[in-house]
Amino acid sequence: MLEELGIKAKRASRLMAKLGQKEKNNALLNVADAIVAHAEEIIAANDKDIEYAKNKGMSEALLDRLKLTKERFIVMADGVREVVALEDPIGEVLSMKKRPNGLLIGQQRVPMGVIGIIYESRPNVTVDAFALTFKTGNAVILRGGSDCINSNIALVKVIKEALRESNVTEDAINLIEDTDREVAKEFMRMNKYVDLLIPRGGAGLIRTVVENATIPVIETGTGNCHIYVDSFASLDKAIPIIKNAKLQRLGTCNTCESLVIHKDIADKAIPLIVDMLEENECEIRGDEASIAISSYIKPATEEDYGTEYLARIISAKVVDNIDEAIEHINRYSTGHSEAIITENYENAQRFLDEIDSACVYVNASTRFTDGFMFGFGAEIGISTQKLHARGPMGLLALTSTKYIIYGDGQIRE
Amino acid sequence: MLEELGIKAKRASRLMAKLGQKEKNNALLNVADAIVAHAEEIIAANDKDIEYAKNKGMSEALLDRLKLTKERFIVMADGVREVVALEDPIGEVLSMKKRPNGLLIGQQRVPMGVIGIIYESRPNVTVDAFALTFKTGNAVILRGGSDCINSNIALVKVIKEALRESNVTEDAINLIEDTDREVAKEFMRMNKYVDLLIPRGGAGLIRTVVENATIPVIETGTGNCHIYVDSFASLDKAIPIIKNAKLQRLGTCNTCESLVIHKDIADKAIPLIVDMLEENECEIRGDEASIAISSYIKPATEEDYGTEYLARIISAKVVDNIDEAIEHINRYSTGHSEAIITENYENAQRFLDEIDSACVYVNASTRFTDGFMFGFGAEIGISTQKLHARGPMGLLALTSTKYIIYGDGQIRE
Repeated sequence: MLEELGIKAKRASRLMAKLGQKEKNNALLNVADAIVAHAEEIIAANDKDIEYAKNKGMSEALLDRLKLTKERFIVMADGVREVVALEDPIGEVLSMKKRPNGLLIGQQRVPMGVIGIIYESRPNVTVDAFALTFKTGNAVILRGGSDCINSNIALVKVIKEALRESNVTEDAINLIEDTDREVAKEFMRMNKYVDLLIPRGGAGLIRTVVENATIPVIETGTGNCHIYVDSFASLDKAIPIIKNAKLQRLGTCNTCESLVIHKDIADKAIPLIVDMLEENECEIRGDEASIAISSYIKPATEEDYGTEYLARIISAKVVDNIDEAIEHINRYSTGHSEAIITENYENAQRFLDEIDSACVYVNASTRFTDGFMFGFGAEIGISTQKLHARGPMGLLALTSTKYIIYGDGQIRE
Repeated sequence: MLEELGIKAKRASRLMAKLGQKEKNNALLNVADAIVAHAEEIIAANDKDIEYAKNKGMSEALLDRLKLTKERFIVMADGVREVVALEDPIGEVLSMKKRPNGLLIGQQRVPMGVIGIIYESRPNVTVDAFALTFKTGNAVILRGGSDCINSNIALVKVIKEALRESNVTEDAINLIEDTDREVAKEFMRMNKYVDLLIPRGGAGLIRTVVENATIPVIETGTGNCHIYVDSFASLDKAIPIIKNAKLQRLGTCNTCESLVIHKDIADKAIPLIVDMLEENECEIRGDEASIAISSYIKPATEEDYGTEYLARIISAKVVDNIDEAIEHINRYSTGHSEAIITENYENAQRFLDEIDSACVYVNASTRFTDGFMFGFGAEIGISTQKLHARGPMGLLALTSTKYIIYGDGQIRE
């Protein structure tokens, strides 16, 4: 079954690579319309998922993610239309040069081929991942969570119909309907058919994919993000930035989870930070030096410094100098996003140079790490690995390149 | 032991990232001199490897690859000096734009971090891989074959000394001295310390790494390269190109292993091809249509079409049209290099568009797929995967990027 899906997707990817911008955009617009037009039947399928999930005792927060409402169809369809409006990166020749022997060698942007997406129980990812991979000329194989399997089957059926009506191969989208974990593991090893695997979800899912996949993976997600309050920080900037980075949204990967504070500013900064966080019912776990300044701070363990809380808790550490700050951050960070608050030119540049993370900020909130905020118009995830794509990934992350070479009979000497 | 190596390499990578071009080039020049100056002691170690290998009954060809002579030290040192002359890609900001909120966001080229190289028994790879990873500001962990372990230990010792004398951390280069296979497998899973793994060697080695690694891998190597002789081919170009692509060097991954011939030109082309290949003692295995034209051709099996011979054998298939040619090639190719021979504009463009390989040629030999021939000035291997790097890899393949963001107090709304 899985093999058959792989063959279909590979074949579809060849056809997809030939499609022009107009054909792809036309199909996407039809998909957007179809989703809204078939909302009722998809909601009926979603109701089944919701019922199973309730019986299983799923939490309110997760039920909310799973639930499809009429409004959410409007949002999903608008999302697809926004992808239509983006520039198609496929076909661009990035550079083309003539070699001494007359060969004209250019590097052209091409689709990745077949992309696998493994995700949890958010049916909107089904539509979102399809739109982005389709826009970039790829075929996609989706493996969603078992909790939303009925919703996914209904959504994919509607998308396939819309593709057929647009005269595009319906195998551009493929869903693995068997939600068994062993099937997922088998999927992760289908190098013959799948060019790239992207896991979208929690740390557990991502670890499972990295551990088991033989297909190239882009690791996304976990963010133990730091803000370093330098001795030269403007506290007028520091306090609002920390408040925004920690509290605007607790559950995102670009949320700040740890503060590092220079000892020379600690006496002034910590009471202000504590007041702001206490007001927002946010716990602080810090080292002895920080506790000596504020009794609101509880003792941090070694483990705290490595934890992505995704909750109203933040860790704190007082350091002697910027070197110690950089070392601490590079040690405990997951390489996602870090910020320095400073008015000192040299410290700002050193932080940018020496912090080994996907996004490094001076005097701004880590919450900006996001494809939309960066101006990409889309986001398939945030990569915390260094291969292929690092940081927020837009359409370009879903493309590859090939060399095209124009000769007139050249042979190698 | 392995963990300790990982910690050392990670620490070294932080220091490496801070080095300027001048410091890196100065160290590389010292390494080049040191290799030549210490040639005798390295040759003494190499003699031990040669003796063990002879006792094991290693073939002459492999012994030749393993053997270090004074001349080879000159070549290795010159190779290092050539790397010095290349432009350092680190630090370049690829694009930098101001967002509506005033944030200035740029993407900067940075070292990959720690690169692992797993290779077979060619001690020159030790020097070559070090020079390229060092030039790009990375620390490297080398795991060479057991057959050249004494040579590698001696080489790495000399390189480390030269680094110390250049005031650069000697942990920029690290060798796994335990050549046990289980140790290699453990190494492939050291995600905490290693950012990228590059296998260099035969198909078996590469498969083992792809199967076992959890670290991101760049797959290099195997090339089942095709030449398609279109109905509009100039045979004056076709015959020399086929001769060059198949016979100039038999054992390279860009060697042509399979011919695809349009039926309308088969009667004229095949006898000329056969004459040339027969003269060069190269066997041809083809389909019925080709055998009907020349009895020199032996029957090909399905397996032949998927085989990278690396020998005086080539497969051949006659097709009805360019569609069938493209389908056949996309089916059996390893995605390395393919060429069309044609004077027809449309067929040339279709071939370039629709062949899904790293390098696609019109009227030129596949033998040009090479970092030096492409003008990169260096080559760390040829990638046949689509993620991160595809085709010949120069220095850029050993780099990553990070976003640097200049703010003045921005928070997300």
